[in-house]
Amino acid sequence: MPTIRVELFEGRTVEQKRALAAALTEATVRTLGGSPGSVDILFFDIAKHDWATGGTLWSDPPPPGG
Amino acid sequence: MPTIRVELFEGRTVEQKRALAAALTEATVRTLGGSPGSVDILFFDIAKHDWATGGTLWSDPPPPGG
Amino acid sequence: MPTIRVELFEGRTVEQKRALAAALTEATVRTLGGSPGSVDILFFDIAKHDWATGGTLWSDPPPPGG
Amino acid sequence: MPTIRVELFEGRTVEQKRALAAALTEATVRTLGGSPGSVDILFFDIAKHDWATGGTLWSDPPPPGG
Amino acid sequence: MPTIRVELFEGRTVEQKRALAAALTEATVRTLGGSPGSVDILFFDIAKHDWATGGTLWSDPPPPGG
Amino acid sequence: MPTIRVELFEGRTVEQKRALAAALTEATVRTLGGSPGSVDILFFDIAKHDWATGGTLWSDPPPPGG
Repeated sequence: MPTIRVELFEGRTVEQKRALAAALTEATVRTLGGSPGSVDILFFDIAKHDWATGGTLWSDPPPPGG
Repeated sequence: MPTIRVELFEGRTVEQKRALAAALTEATVRTLGGSPGSVDILFFDIAKHDWATGGTLWSDPPPPGG
Repeated sequence: MPTIRVELFEGRTVEQKRALAAALTEATVRTLGGSPGSVDILFFDIAKHDWATGGTLWSDPPPPGG
Repeated sequence: MPTIRVELFEGRTVEQKRALAAALTEATVRTLGGSPGSVDILFFDIAKHDWATGGTLWSDPPPPGG
Repeated sequence: MPTIRVELFEGRTVEQKRALAAALTEATVRTLGGSPGSVDILFFDIAKHDWATGGTLWSDPPPPGG
Repeated sequence: MPTIRVELFEGRTVEQKRALAAALTEATVRTLGGSPGSVDILFFDIAKHDWATGGTLWSDPPPPGG
Protein backbone atom coordinates (compact mmCIF):
# COMPACT_ATOMS: atom_id res chain seq x y z
CA MET A 1 0.00 0.00 0.00
CA PRO A 2 -0.26 2.14 -1.93
CA THR A 3 -0.01 0.50 -5.31
CA ILE A 4 0.72 2.80 -8.23
CA ARG A 5 0.06 1.68 -11.81
CA VAL A 6 1.57 3.73 -14.60
CA GLU A 7 0.38 3.43 -18.19
CA LEU A 8 2.75 5.12 -20.59
CA PHE A 9 3.61 4.98 -24.26
CA GLU A 10 5.96 2.10 -25.01
CA GLY A 11 9.55 3.00 -25.77
CA ARG A 12 10.80 4.21 -22.38
CA THR A 13 14.08 2.67 -21.29
CA VAL A 14 14.65 0.65 -18.14
CA GLU A 15 16.74 3.57 -16.93
CA GLN A 16 13.77 5.93 -17.26
CA LYS A 17 11.55 3.45 -15.46
CA ARG A 18 14.15 3.05 -12.71
CA ALA A 19 14.27 6.82 -12.25
CA LEU A 20 10.48 7.16 -12.39
CA ALA A 21 9.95 4.36 -9.87
CA ALA A 22 12.35 6.04 -7.45
CA ALA A 23 10.81 9.49 -8.00
CA LEU A 24 7.21 8.30 -7.60
CA THR A 25 8.08 6.31 -4.47
CA GLU A 26 9.90 9.28 -2.95
CA ALA A 27 7.01 11.61 -3.79
CA THR A 28 4.49 9.19 -2.24
CA VAL A 29 6.44 8.67 1.01
CA ARG A 30 7.17 12.40 1.29
CA THR A 31 3.47 13.22 0.88
CA LEU A 32 1.67 10.37 2.64
CA GLY A 33 4.35 9.11 5.01
CA GLY A 34 4.81 5.36 5.38
CA SER A 35 7.81 3.32 4.27
CA PRO A 36 9.16 3.05 0.73
CA GLY A 37 8.84 -0.73 1.03
CA SER A 38 5.08 -0.41 1.22
CA VAL A 39 4.92 1.26 -2.22
CA ASP A 40 4.50 -0.94 -5.28
CA ILE A 41 4.75 0.52 -8.76
CA LEU A 42 3.80 -1.27 -11.98
CA PHE A 43 4.51 -0.02 -15.49
CA PHE A 44 2.32 -0.84 -18.47
CA ASP A 45 3.75 -0.04 -21.90
CA ILE A 46 1.01 0.99 -24.32
CA ALA A 47 1.61 1.00 -28.07
CA LYS A 48 0.49 4.18 -29.85
CA HIS A 49 -1.98 2.14 -31.88
CA ASP A 50 -3.53 0.96 -28.59
CA TRP A 51 -4.31 4.43 -27.25
CA ALA A 52 -6.90 6.70 -28.77
CA THR A 53 -7.92 10.21 -27.77
CA GLY A 54 -10.80 12.00 -29.44
CA GLY A 55 -11.48 8.82 -31.42
CA THR A 56 -8.08 8.88 -33.13
CA LEU A 57 -5.27 6.43 -32.49
CA TRP A 58 -2.05 8.12 -31.40
CA SER A 59 -0.32 6.14 -34.17
CA ASP A 60 -2.41 8.02 -36.73
CA PRO A 61 -1.91 11.59 -37.97
CA PRO A 62 -4.17 13.98 -36.06
CA PRO A 63 -7.37 14.91 -37.94
CA PRO A 64 -7.14 18.22 -39.92
CA GLY A 65 -7.44 21.13 -37.47
CA GLY A 66 -7.13 18.50 -34.75
CA MET B 1 -12.82 11.79 -18.89
CA PRO B 2 -14.16 9.31 -19.43
CA THR B 3 -11.40 6.77 -19.87
CA ILE B 4 -12.42 3.52 -21.56
CA ARG B 5 -10.24 0.40 -21.26
CA VAL B 6 -10.93 -2.46 -23.63
CA GLU B 7 -9.58 -5.95 -23.01
CA LEU B 8 -9.97 -8.16 -26.04
CA PHE B 9 -8.43 -11.32 -27.46
CA GLU B 10 -5.19 -10.58 -29.22
CA GLY B 11 -5.21 -10.73 -33.00
CA ARG B 12 -7.33 -7.70 -33.90
CA THR B 13 -5.82 -5.47 -36.55
CA VAL B 14 -4.96 -1.80 -36.14
CA GLU B 15 -7.77 -1.10 -38.59
CA GLN B 16 -10.26 -2.83 -36.29
CA LYS B 17 -8.92 -0.91 -33.31
CA ARG B 18 -9.12 2.35 -35.29
CA ALA B 19 -12.76 1.63 -36.13
CA LEU B 20 -13.59 0.54 -32.58
CA ALA B 21 -11.95 3.61 -31.05
CA ALA B 22 -14.00 5.87 -33.32
CA ALA B 23 -17.21 3.94 -32.68
CA LEU B 24 -16.78 3.87 -28.88
CA THR B 25 -15.90 7.57 -28.78
CA GLU B 26 -18.93 8.48 -30.91
CA ALA B 27 -21.20 6.32 -28.76
CA THR B 28 -19.87 7.92 -25.57
CA VAL B 29 -20.24 11.52 -26.80
CA ARG B 30 -23.68 10.79 -28.24
CA THR B 31 -24.83 9.30 -24.92
CA LEU B 32 -23.06 11.41 -22.29
CA GLY B 33 -22.33 14.62 -24.22
CA GLY B 34 -18.93 16.23 -23.80
CA SER B 35 -16.22 16.51 -26.43
CA PRO B 36 -14.55 13.62 -28.24
CA GLY B 37 -11.19 15.01 -27.09
CA SER B 38 -12.10 14.21 -23.51
CA VAL B 39 -12.47 10.50 -24.27
CA ASP B 40 -9.43 8.27 -23.91
CA ILE B 41 -9.52 4.64 -25.04
CA LEU B 42 -6.88 2.02 -24.27
CA PHE B 43 -6.73 -1.47 -25.80
CA PHE B 44 -5.25 -4.44 -24.02
CA ASP B 45 -4.58 -7.54 -26.12
CA ILE B 46 -5.11 -10.72 -24.09
CA ALA B 47 -3.72 -14.04 -25.28
CA LYS B 48 -6.23 -16.92 -25.18
CA HIS B 49 -3.98 -18.73 -22.70
CA ASP B 50 -4.25 -15.67 -20.42
CA TRP B 51 -8.03 -15.69 -20.19
CA ALA B 52 -10.00 -18.39 -18.43
CA THR B 53 -13.75 -18.80 -18.02
CA GLY B 54 -15.24 -21.55 -15.91
CA GLY B 55 -11.70 -22.54 -14.90
CA THR B 56 -10.68 -23.37 -18.48
CA LEU B 57 -8.21 -21.39 -20.55
CA TRP B 58 -9.70 -20.17 -23.83
CA SER B 59 -6.65 -21.71 -25.55
CA ASP B 60 -7.79 -25.13 -24.35
CA PRO B 61 -10.59 -27.26 -25.80
CA PRO B 62 -13.81 -26.75 -23.81
CA PRO B 63 -14.50 -29.48 -21.24
CA PRO B 64 -16.84 -32.27 -22.53
CA GLY B 65 -20.42 -30.98 -22.44
CA GLY B 66 -18.93 -27.56 -21.71
CA MET C 1 -14.74 -10.95 -24.31
CA PRO C 2 -14.23 -8.14 -24.76
CA THR C 3 -14.48 -6.50 -21.38
CA ILE C 4 -14.89 -2.72 -21.38
CA ARG C 5 -14.19 -0.67 -18.25
CA VAL C 6 -15.42 2.90 -18.17
CA GLU C 7 -14.10 5.42 -15.65
CA LEU C 8 -16.21 8.54 -15.58
CA PHE C 9 -16.94 11.38 -13.21
CA GLU C 10 -19.49 10.38 -10.60
CA GLY C 11 -22.97 11.83 -10.98
CA ARG C 12 -24.24 10.04 -14.09
CA THR C 13 -27.68 8.53 -13.70
CA VAL C 14 -28.54 4.85 -14.11
CA GLU C 15 -30.45 5.89 -17.24
CA GLN C 16 -27.27 7.37 -18.74
CA LYS C 17 -25.33 4.24 -17.83
CA ARG C 18 -28.06 2.06 -19.33
CA ALA C 19 -27.89 4.04 -22.57
CA LEU C 20 -24.09 4.05 -22.60
CA ALA C 21 -23.89 0.30 -21.96
CA ALA C 22 -26.24 -0.35 -24.88
CA ALA C 23 -24.40 2.08 -27.17
CA LEU C 24 -20.93 0.74 -26.35
CA THR C 25 -22.09 -2.86 -26.77
CA GLU C 26 -23.70 -2.07 -30.12
CA ALA C 27 -20.60 -0.20 -31.31
CA THR C 28 -18.38 -3.12 -30.27
CA VAL C 29 -20.47 -5.81 -31.97
CA ARG C 30 -20.89 -3.67 -35.09
CA THR C 31 -17.12 -3.15 -35.32
CA LEU C 32 -15.65 -6.44 -34.12
CA GLY C 33 -18.53 -8.84 -34.72
CA GLY C 34 -19.33 -11.43 -32.08
CA SER C 35 -22.42 -11.55 -29.89
CA PRO C 36 -23.63 -8.85 -27.52
CA GLY C 37 -23.66 -11.46 -24.75
CA SER C 38 -19.89 -11.72 -24.96
CA VAL C 39 -19.44 -8.02 -24.11
CA ASP C 40 -19.09 -7.02 -20.48
CA ILE C 41 -19.08 -3.38 -19.43
CA LEU C 42 -18.16 -2.06 -15.98
CA PHE C 43 -18.61 1.51 -14.81
CA PHE C 44 -16.38 3.15 -12.22
CA ASP C 45 -17.60 6.44 -10.77
CA ILE C 46 -14.68 8.74 -9.97
CA ALA C 47 -15.13 11.71 -7.64
CA LYS C 48 -13.67 14.97 -8.97
CA HIS C 49 -11.30 15.09 -6.02
CA ASP C 50 -9.99 11.66 -7.07
CA TRP C 51 -8.98 12.69 -10.58
CA ALA C 52 -6.14 15.08 -11.31
CA THR C 53 -4.88 16.38 -14.62
CA GLY C 54 -1.79 18.55 -14.85
CA GLY C 55 -1.28 18.07 -11.11
CA THR C 56 -4.61 19.73 -10.24
CA LEU C 57 -7.64 17.95 -8.83
CA TRP C 58 -10.75 18.42 -10.97
CA SER C 59 -12.54 19.50 -7.77
CA ASP C 60 -10.20 22.48 -7.56
CA PRO C 61 -10.34 25.69 -9.59
CA PRO C 62 -7.95 25.49 -12.57
CA PRO C 63 -4.63 27.25 -12.00
CA PRO C 64 -4.50 30.85 -13.38
CA GLY C 65 -4.01 30.71 -17.14
CA GLY C 66 -4.66 26.97 -16.83
CA MET D 1 -0.24 10.01 -21.25
CA PRO D 2 0.91 8.79 -18.89
CA THR D 3 -2.01 7.79 -16.71
CA ILE D 4 -1.22 6.99 -13.08
CA ARG D 5 -3.67 5.03 -10.93
CA VAL D 6 -3.11 5.04 -7.20
CA GLU D 7 -4.78 2.51 -4.91
CA LEU D 8 -4.45 3.48 -1.29
CA PHE D 9 -6.19 2.76 2.00
CA GLU D 10 -9.29 4.88 2.38
CA GLY D 11 -9.11 7.71 4.87
CA ARG D 12 -6.71 10.11 3.15
CA THR D 13 -7.94 13.68 3.00
CA VAL D 14 -8.50 15.71 -0.16
CA GLU D 15 -5.54 17.81 0.93
CA GLN D 16 -3.29 14.75 0.96
CA LYS D 17 -4.58 13.72 -2.45
CA ARG D 18 -4.04 17.25 -3.76
CA ALA D 19 -0.44 17.17 -2.52
CA LEU D 20 0.15 13.66 -3.85
CA ALA D 21 -1.29 14.51 -7.28
CA ALA D 22 1.03 17.50 -7.54
CA ALA D 23 4.05 15.54 -6.31
CA LEU D 24 3.46 12.56 -8.62
CA THR D 25 2.88 14.85 -11.61
CA GLU D 26 6.06 16.82 -10.88
CA ALA D 27 8.07 13.61 -10.44
CA THR D 28 6.73 12.23 -13.72
CA VAL D 29 7.46 15.37 -15.76
CA ARG D 30 10.88 15.76 -14.15
CA THR D 31 11.75 12.16 -15.03
CA LEU D 32 10.08 11.57 -18.37
CA GLY D 33 9.69 15.10 -19.71
CA GLY D 34 6.44 16.08 -21.37
CA SER D 35 3.86 18.52 -20.04
CA PRO D 36 2.02 18.30 -16.72
CA GLY D 37 -1.25 18.54 -18.66
CA SER D 38 -0.56 15.17 -20.25
CA VAL D 39 -0.46 13.45 -16.85
CA ASP D 40 -3.69 12.04 -15.45
CA ILE D 41 -3.87 10.65 -11.92
CA LEU D 42 -6.74 8.65 -10.46
CA PHE D 43 -7.13 7.72 -6.80
CA PHE D 44 -8.93 4.59 -5.64
CA ASP D 45 -9.76 4.37 -1.93
CA ILE D 46 -9.59 0.79 -0.70
CA ALA D 47 -11.21 -0.22 2.59
CA LYS D 48 -8.96 -2.29 4.88
CA HIS D 49 -11.44 -5.16 4.64
CA ASP D 50 -11.02 -5.08 0.86
CA TRP D 51 -7.26 -5.58 0.86
CA ALA D 52 -5.60 -8.80 1.97
CA THR D 53 -1.91 -9.67 2.18
CA GLY D 54 -0.75 -13.16 3.07
CA GLY D 55 -4.40 -14.28 3.07
CA THR D 56 -5.34 -11.90 5.90
CA LEU D 57 -7.53 -8.84 5.55
CA TRP D 58 -5.82 -5.64 6.72
CA SER D 59 -8.92 -5.01 8.85
CA ASP D 60 -8.12 -8.16 10.81
CA PRO D 61 -5.45 -8.60 13.49
CA PRO D 62 -2.29 -10.13 12.00
CA PRO D 63 -1.96 -13.88 12.53
CA PRO D 64 0.19 -14.82 15.61
CA GLY D 65 3.86 -14.40 14.69
CA GLY D 66 2.65 -12.74 11.52
CA MET E 1 3.68 -10.61 -6.38
CA PRO E 2 1.30 -11.77 -7.54
CA THR E 3 -1.45 -9.21 -7.08
CA ILE E 4 -5.00 -10.47 -7.49
CA ARG E 5 -7.88 -8.07 -8.09
CA VAL E 6 -11.39 -9.36 -7.66
CA GLU E 7 -14.41 -7.51 -9.05
CA LEU E 8 -17.64 -8.89 -7.68
CA PHE E 9 -21.22 -7.76 -7.20
CA GLU E 10 -21.57 -5.61 -4.08
CA GLY E 11 -23.27 -7.21 -1.11
CA ARG E 12 -20.72 -9.81 -0.02
CA THR E 13 -19.95 -9.77 3.67
CA VAL E 14 -16.53 -9.20 5.23
CA GLU E 15 -16.68 -12.84 6.31
CA GLN E 16 -17.07 -13.96 2.70
CA LYS E 17 -14.20 -11.73 1.64
CA ARG E 18 -12.07 -13.05 4.50
CA ALA E 19 -12.75 -16.61 3.37
CA LEU E 20 -12.17 -15.79 -0.30
CA ALA E 21 -8.91 -13.98 0.42
CA ALA E 22 -7.64 -17.02 2.34
CA ALA E 23 -8.83 -19.46 -0.33
CA LEU E 24 -7.36 -17.50 -3.25
CA THR E 25 -4.05 -17.04 -1.42
CA GLU E 26 -3.85 -20.74 -0.59
CA ALA E 27 -4.71 -21.70 -4.18
CA THR E 28 -2.05 -19.33 -5.52
CA VAL E 29 0.72 -20.55 -3.22
CA ARG E 30 -0.24 -24.18 -3.78
CA THR E 31 -0.08 -23.70 -7.55
CA LEU E 32 2.76 -21.25 -8.07
CA GLY E 33 4.79 -21.70 -4.90
CA GLY E 34 6.14 -18.63 -3.15
CA SER E 35 5.06 -17.28 0.22
CA PRO E 36 1.55 -16.21 1.21
CA GLY E 37 2.98 -12.85 2.24
CA SER E 38 3.85 -12.11 -1.37
CA VAL E 39 0.19 -12.37 -2.43
CA ASP E 40 -1.94 -9.25 -2.38
CA ILE E 41 -5.68 -9.41 -3.01
CA LEU E 42 -7.96 -6.43 -3.60
CA PHE E 43 -11.75 -6.56 -3.74
CA PHE E 44 -13.83 -4.17 -5.80
CA ASP E 45 -17.57 -4.12 -5.10
CA ILE E 46 -19.55 -3.42 -8.27
CA ALA E 47 -23.18 -2.30 -8.10
CA LYS E 48 -25.53 -4.21 -10.41
CA HIS E 49 -26.33 -0.98 -12.24
CA ASP E 50 -22.59 -0.61 -12.93
CA TRP E 51 -22.18 -3.93 -14.71
CA ALA E 52 -23.72 -4.70 -18.08
CA THR E 53 -23.60 -7.89 -20.12
CA GLY E 54 -25.05 -8.07 -23.60
CA GLY E 55 -25.85 -4.36 -23.36
CA THR E 56 -28.17 -4.82 -20.38
CA LEU E 57 -27.45 -3.65 -16.85
CA TRP E 58 -27.61 -6.47 -14.30
CA SER E 59 -29.97 -4.27 -12.30
CA ASP E 60 -32.46 -4.47 -15.15
CA PRO E 61 -34.75 -7.36 -16.05
CA PRO E 62 -33.18 -9.50 -18.79
CA PRO E 63 -34.53 -8.75 -22.28
CA PRO E 64 -37.36 -11.13 -23.38
CA GLY E 65 -35.83 -14.46 -24.42
CA GLY E 66 -32.59 -13.14 -23.01
CA MET F 1 -19.05 -12.21 -12.19
CA PRO F 2 -16.72 -12.23 -10.47
CA THR F 3 -13.79 -11.23 -12.63
CA ILE F 4 -10.35 -11.99 -11.23
CA ARG F 5 -7.25 -10.27 -12.60
CA VAL F 6 -3.88 -11.72 -11.73
CA GLU F 7 -0.67 -9.76 -12.20
CA LEU F 8 2.38 -11.96 -11.85
CA PHE F 9 6.01 -11.94 -12.90
CA GLU F 10 6.41 -13.06 -16.48
CA GLY F 11 7.85 -16.51 -17.04
CA ARG F 12 5.06 -18.76 -15.77
CA THR F 13 4.14 -21.56 -18.15
CA VAL F 14 0.72 -22.12 -19.70
CA GLU F 15 0.52 -25.22 -17.54
CA GLN F 16 0.96 -23.14 -14.39
CA LYS F 17 -1.66 -20.68 -15.59
CA ARG F 18 -4.02 -23.55 -16.44
CA ALA F 19 -3.60 -24.94 -12.92
CA LEU F 20 -3.94 -21.51 -11.30
CA ALA F 21 -7.08 -20.69 -13.29
CA ALA F 22 -8.68 -23.95 -12.17
CA ALA F 23 -7.59 -23.49 -8.54
CA LEU F 24 -8.78 -19.87 -8.32
CA THR F 25 -12.10 -20.72 -9.95
CA GLU F 26 -12.66 -23.65 -7.59
CA ALA F 27 -11.73 -21.51 -4.56
CA THR F 28 -14.12 -18.76 -5.67
CA VAL F 29 -17.08 -21.09 -6.29
CA ARG F 30 -16.41 -22.98 -3.05
CA THR F 31 -16.36 -19.73 -1.09
CA LEU F 32 -18.97 -17.55 -2.79
CA GLY F 33 -21.15 -20.15 -4.51
CA GLY F 34 -22.30 -19.50 -8.06
CA SER F 35 -21.25 -21.39 -11.16
CA PRO F 36 -17.71 -21.80 -12.46
CA GLY F 37 -18.90 -20.40 -15.78
CA SER F 38 -19.55 -17.05 -14.16
CA VAL F 39 -15.89 -16.69 -13.14
CA ASP F 40 -13.50 -14.97 -15.52
CA ILE F 41 -9.77 -14.90 -14.84
CA LEU F 42 -7.21 -12.78 -16.70
CA PHE F 43 -3.45 -13.08 -16.36
CA PHE F 44 -1.10 -10.17 -16.86
CA ASP F 45 2.61 -11.00 -17.18
CA ILE F 46 4.76 -8.27 -15.67
CA ALA F 47 8.46 -8.02 -16.50
CA LYS F 48 10.73 -7.59 -13.47
CA HIS F 49 11.87 -4.23 -14.83
CA ASP F 50 8.21 -3.14 -14.84
CA TRP F 51 7.58 -3.78 -11.15
CA ALA F 52 9.20 -1.76 -8.39
CA THR F 53 8.88 -2.11 -4.64
CA GLY F 54 10.47 0.35 -2.27
CA GLY F 55 11.56 2.41 -5.28
CA THR F 56 13.71 -0.40 -6.69
CA LEU F 57 12.96 -2.38 -9.83
CA TRP F 58 12.76 -6.12 -9.20
CA SER F 59 15.23 -6.53 -12.09
CA ASP F 60 17.81 -4.63 -10.06
CA PRO F 61 19.90 -5.94 -7.16
CA PRO F 62 18.26 -5.00 -3.84
CA PRO F 63 19.81 -1.93 -2.17
CA PRO F 64 22.50 -2.75 0.48
CA GLY F 65 20.74 -3.88 3.67
CA GLY F 66 17.57 -3.92 1.60
